[in-house]
Amino acid sequence: MSHDIRASELKQPIDVAEYLFRRLHELGVRSVHGVPGDYNLVALDYIPRCGLNWVGNCNELNAGYAADGYARVKGVSAVVTTFGVGELSVLNATAGAYSEYASVVHIVGQPSTVSQKSGMLLHHTLGNGDFNVFANMSAGISCAVAKLNDPCEAATLIDHALRECWVQSRPVYITLPTDIVQKKVEGERLKTPIDLSEPSVEAEKEDYVVDVVLKYLSTAQNPVILVDACAVRHRVLDETHHLIQKSNLPVFVTPMGKSAVDETLPNYGGVYAGDGSNAGVKERVESADLILSIGAIKSDFNTTGFTYRVGQLKTIDFHSTMMRVRYSEYPGVGMKGVLRKVTEKLPKLNVEAAPPVSQNKIPNGELDVSKDSPISHAWFWPRMGQWLKEDDIVVTETGTANFGIWETRFPKGVLALSQVLWGSIGWSVGACQGAALAAKEAGNRRTLLFVGDGSIQLTAQEISTMIRHDLTPIIFCICNEGYTIERYIHGMDAVYNDVQEWRYKDLVPTFGAKPDKYKVHQVKTREELEAFFQAEDSSQVSQLQFVELYMPKEDAPAALKITAEASARTNAKTQ
Amino acid sequence: MSHDIRASELKQPIDVAEYLFRRLHELGVRSVHGVPGDYNLVALDYIPRCGLNWVGNCNELNAGYAADGYARVKGVSAVVTTFGVGELSVLNATAGAYSEYASVVHIVGQPSTVSQKSGMLLHHTLGNGDFNVFANMSAGISCAVAKLNDPCEAATLIDHALRECWVQSRPVYITLPTDIVQKKVEGERLKTPIDLSEPSVEAEKEDYVVDVVLKYLSTAQNPVILVDACAVRHRVLDETHHLIQKSNLPVFVTPMGKSAVDETLPNYGGVYAGDGSNAGVKERVESADLILSIGAIKSDFNTTGFTYRVGQLKTIDFHSTMMRVRYSEYPGVGMKGVLRKVTEKLPKLNVEAAPPVSQNKIPNGELDVSKDSPISHAWFWPRMGQWLKEDDIVVTETGTANFGIWETRFPKGVLALSQVLWGSIGWSVGACQGAALAAKEAGNRRTLLFVGDGSIQLTAQEISTMIRHDLTPIIFCICNEGYTIERYIHGMDAVYNDVQEWRYKDLVPTFGAKPDKYKVHQVKTREELEAFFQAEDSSQVSQLQFVELYMPKEDAPAALKITAEASARTNAKTQ
Repeated sequence: MSHDIRASELKQPIDVAEYLFRRLHELGVRSVHGVPGDYNLVALDYIPRCGLNWVGNCNELNAGYAADGYARVKGVSAVVTTFGVGELSVLNATAGAYSEYASVVHIVGQPSTVSQKSGMLLHHTLGNGDFNVFANMSAGISCAVAKLNDPCEAATLIDHALRECWVQSRPVYITLPTDIVQKKVEGERLKTPIDLSEPSVEAEKEDYVVDVVLKYLSTAQNPVILVDACAVRHRVLDETHHLIQKSNLPVFVTPMGKSAVDETLPNYGGVYAGDGSNAGVKERVESADLILSIGAIKSDFNTTGFTYRVGQLKTIDFHSTMMRVRYSEYPGVGMKGVLRKVTEKLPKLNVEAAPPVSQNKIPNGELDVSKDSPISHAWFWPRMGQWLKEDDIVVTETGTANFGIWETRFPKGVLALSQVLWGSIGWSVGACQGAALAAKEAGNRRTLLFVGDGSIQLTAQEISTMIRHDLTPIIFCICNEGYTIERYIHGMDAVYNDVQEWRYKDLVPTFGAKPDKYKVHQVKTREELEAFFQAEDSSQVSQLQFVELYMPKEDAPAALKITAEASARTNAKTQ
Repeated sequence: MSHDIRASELKQPIDVAEYLFRRLHELGVRSVHGVPGDYNLVALDYIPRCGLNWVGNCNELNAGYAADGYARVKGVSAVVTTFGVGELSVLNATAGAYSEYASVVHIVGQPSTVSQKSGMLLHHTLGNGDFNVFANMSAGISCAVAKLNDPCEAATLIDHALRECWVQSRPVYITLPTDIVQKKVEGERLKTPIDLSEPSVEAEKEDYVVDVVLKYLSTAQNPVILVDACAVRHRVLDETHHLIQKSNLPVFVTPMGKSAVDETLPNYGGVYAGDGSNAGVKERVESADLILSIGAIKSDFNTTGFTYRVGQLKTIDFHSTMMRVRYSEYPGVGMKGVLRKVTEKLPKLNVEAAPPVSQNKIPNGELDVSKDSPISHAWFWPRMGQWLKEDDIVVTETGTANFGIWETRFPKGVLALSQVLWGSIGWSVGACQGAALAAKEAGNRRTLLFVGDGSIQLTAQEISTMIRHDLTPIIFCICNEGYTIERYIHGMDAVYNDVQEWRYKDLVPTFGAKPDKYKVHQVKTREELEAFFQAEDSSQVSQLQFVELYMPKEDAPAALKITAEASARTNAKTQ
């Protein structure tokens, strides 16, 4: 009753679900991932009405991975699950988005607030009347939680959660009980876009930090720039590029920062990751007397097992909400403003010679492309780099692929997606679905997936979702008989690192692809791969393509081997 | 150093991992489910040494489902995952085991305690140094948590957790950091088996309750017995059967209690679930003047949407740790002891005529098996019941299958598995793998799976694990174009209830089954299904079989339709 009265006071009453989906549309979301369940069905009816496309994934974890991939291309994404069963299946993906800073809005269809209050013994519950236990699980891996239990506060909670999702670049969790979906909120609010601006900073404080940075920068003899993941996720790539181009300083990326920098720039130097760095890079970075480190996440797999040799006395750290110059910390001052002002005021800097750069050069000893030559990682990654095209989206799985990609120099505009910190195997297949869908919405970018045979088995069915939505990625399935990264950590010949041998390329027709909609390839030698690369239609995007790419079981990129050895040592450490 | 000194004081030092796996073996576990990850690899080396078999699932959620299925056949099971990524993927399965009372031991390989203490920025973390966030998530869905951070208390914590897992019949969560795996504990403890006895009860109190029960029972005019899930999970089926046979009372089961009672007994009457009950059952149960309700879980899907018409004044509730007679409650007195003593002291009871029973009778109007007759649920389930064999294990997915099975009367010894309360779609495929493996270990029982085309897509790859371990279930994939149970709740023709059409039977060769190891069938009419049922080899267990079973899109078991309507009403309820 009270709600009806209230509704009559609203200037432009619209339903809560419509408000939520229109806000998502405003942020740039065009497709919503997820799996239907009876507690979200009525809400799903609003999706097409709000100009959105429902994806309908095969399962929730895959939907979460896909939303992660979509967010990394489009800036933000949404995934809808149902209470209990659905939302718990997506937690691994949400934790990954939290860990790696992806803006994913997780909407959970809940039982009616009436059922919740009375503690009804409903399906998808623990049977104990506790309807909060699942929300509590998500709270630890979400930067905001909005429980839409009351239409009076629903719009405010939605706007707040979406702002936090964007600004913090992390997942948020929104509950939508069945009886709230159609309750009315003020539609007039939609005329004012959600405030997505950076938190305001005291100008004097910011200027102070800028001066400190400039002081060290102008006296440095051979400074370099090192760009990492948070530069991407906190959206400072434009600012970073202005600095790179105006300063002309040598610039390097970390593995998680791969593709953050235009790799066709003459001052781009390659991947720095301590002992696993590209040839020549380690020496150049570690001999610099000042490092501008932008958006660093110094995790084990991002640093080849903590093998950085870069002292803090030589480092200026740029972060989203704090700066650190040597050991002086400046909380509340973010990199976006500082980068902008530093570039503006930039004096003439001392720039040593341009860095030595690998140009997708095949190493000596790997040049043989004769008939029976097996495909090694040392050969494959630079060769593949030569074949890439501008604006490609390159998704690499945790394992040989996301280490191998270090050896690839990208054409302009390439976007690389990987999950180096969270490292959940199987992620890349879902992420590829989300990325390919975002790519399709953004025009006609090509999406490439590199995934191993161990990893693809976790999430293979999302190829079905790609087929369902006419997405046309090129999927390279590296067939090397199991979990290679694990073999290098422990158990080279252990049975537990083996997997069942599938007929991988048959997955595509089995998942219902029509014969004229796809093409599959089996590639076992360098010669065969050369033929694939050179074939006129292998690089088109009108069909989904699946390449069974055979590589020797015990081969791996060099950086993977070093990182795995370091991991084994860390695991065994007893003090 | 201190640990070495301590180790020399142990009479029979053995490694923590060995202790844990030997205890699991003692409880009856023979196969360990899970997925390898670098934080559990060293622990996995102990599995074969302890007489256990490593399953190696395709992903963790499926491994959790499989462990659930295995536990329901063997009494207890174990699943091993890795920190963060692996353990979060299994949470939905663990919550299901908690909700439905399955004894699953979840072992998580963690980073070394040294790394945890120093808050290292390792892969599979949130990047914030918090190593407890995932354990906290699991705590709410585990009946015990054992963090093995100290070898001095490891053995005690393991024994306690395993006891709780068994006695409470719910999952437990055990962390195994990499540096603890090989620490020494006292092996002599293994000579004393873990105490799995019921908590002791004061004899006078128990006798008092028994007398109260007998008082009501002996004066009742037409009492009945109703057996539900907790009778199975808390292991009182022997006691229940003694009561059923000695009393000769009419006995019914709930949907979650299906197969708890020997359905060939003359006093077995069928499934009671309020408005969705088997023919004649509702009248018989609801007209009884006393109901002995054993192990009830009165959830929506177990009661056709809360449609029981059974007053508490006519009810005696038997639970694992409490009894309730009408409104008198007796906490601390469990059903096991009470059932035993009631049966012992049972006087001659008044037994009305045996209940009316459906004998897998095909309803009138469904008798046509001519060439083009489509397969309806009304026809299929009783017909399938006629084809079942003694000791079959029947796994039904949430949806048409676990409602349809109400219409099937089982031969002796059949075990039915379903997930009526938690209801996570996709569960049955994993559960079937676990159940079929347990069945193989237990001799040569036949395992049957009934799963819809919507549900199989969530977890299809676990068919690969069945193939890998030479398991030979018969899988019926009900092809009816999507999520039928959801269509009946909301959105009969909604796109979100559709799924991509797969070539389902091709999954088997695609997942690597060798031609002589499997057989696939496509069945679109009653005539074709009759031919399958009658074929000499269709009921053997030497090969995995996959049956594409086509049914009309909008057909569903009657009980599902009633339950779905009730769910839609509950979801819409605003006060």
